[in-house]
Amino acid sequence: MATKQIIEEGLGFIPKFDDGGLMPAIAQDAKTGQILMIAYMNRQALDSTIQTGYATYFSRSRQELWRKGQESGHVQKVEQILVDCDQDCLVLRVTVDTGQCHVGYQSCFYRALKKDSVKELEFIAEKVYDPQKTYKKQS
Amino acid sequence: MATKQIIEEGLGFIPKFDDGGLMPAIAQDAKTGQILMIAYMNRQALDSTIQTGYATYFSRSRQELWRKGQESGHVQKVEQILVDCDQDCLVLRVTVDTGQCHVGYQSCFYRALKKDSVKELEFIAEKVYDPQKTYKKQS
Repeated sequence: MATKQIIEEGLGFIPKFDDGGLMPAIAQDAKTGQILMIAYMNRQALDSTIQTGYATYFSRSRQELWRKGQESGHVQKVEQILVDCDQDCLVLRVTVDTGQCHVGYQSCFYRALKKDSVKELEFIAEKVYDPQKTYKKQS
Repeated sequence: MATKQIIEEGLGFIPKFDDGGLMPAIAQDAKTGQILMIAYMNRQALDSTIQTGYATYFSRSRQELWRKGQESGHVQKVEQILVDCDQDCLVLRVTVDTGQCHVGYQSCFYRALKKDSVKELEFIAEKVYDPQKTYKKQS
């Protein structure tokens, strides 16, 4: 088993998946720095992402590999893969077109908690595409 | 139970914790957009973060609340809390000083997978402080 020193300070990529075989991956727009979404990868999704150069995740709800954009066309071209200190989370720096969230926004993070509120949100973005037209099959 | 429509399109903050009572929170530098770290929050950590205005997480390894910077001094002043479409992940937009990662770097994401490699990393940042001097107790 790799030591803390090797994991944190080494040059070996030793991704640490959780007990369910998954690790979180944050997609960040390589140009603007905007955080677009978080999703999960198993070993196969990670391998596919590295091999193809396009982000592939593992859908926990559908329990299957999910190549981002396979239905919507909103793919993520991976420019760089960063790993954190304990190697249990990735950042994918990606090039994208318009509209990464299935709800219609550029980013999944289109709402913020209102100042001085513990339960009220406010929208901080506007929709950039119509998901009804993009997704053939609505869930 | 809240509908998908209410969760995704509503103005109510209904954070969805996982079976272990946790949700991931991504800390992002509010000024530069740099992703600093990912950590986890339980309900209490989230409430504490909202109430105090400083990031508090739940340490999975130590199984206790962890106010970021309580030992190192590298606190995170929370400017804005974003929530994603299905409300199971947060982005904290934070103001920070130098050095957010316990290894000595500004961000925990100080290494990237080398181009055309599946197992070799390269450093993409330099240390900004000496953790030996900052942390009284080394793990």
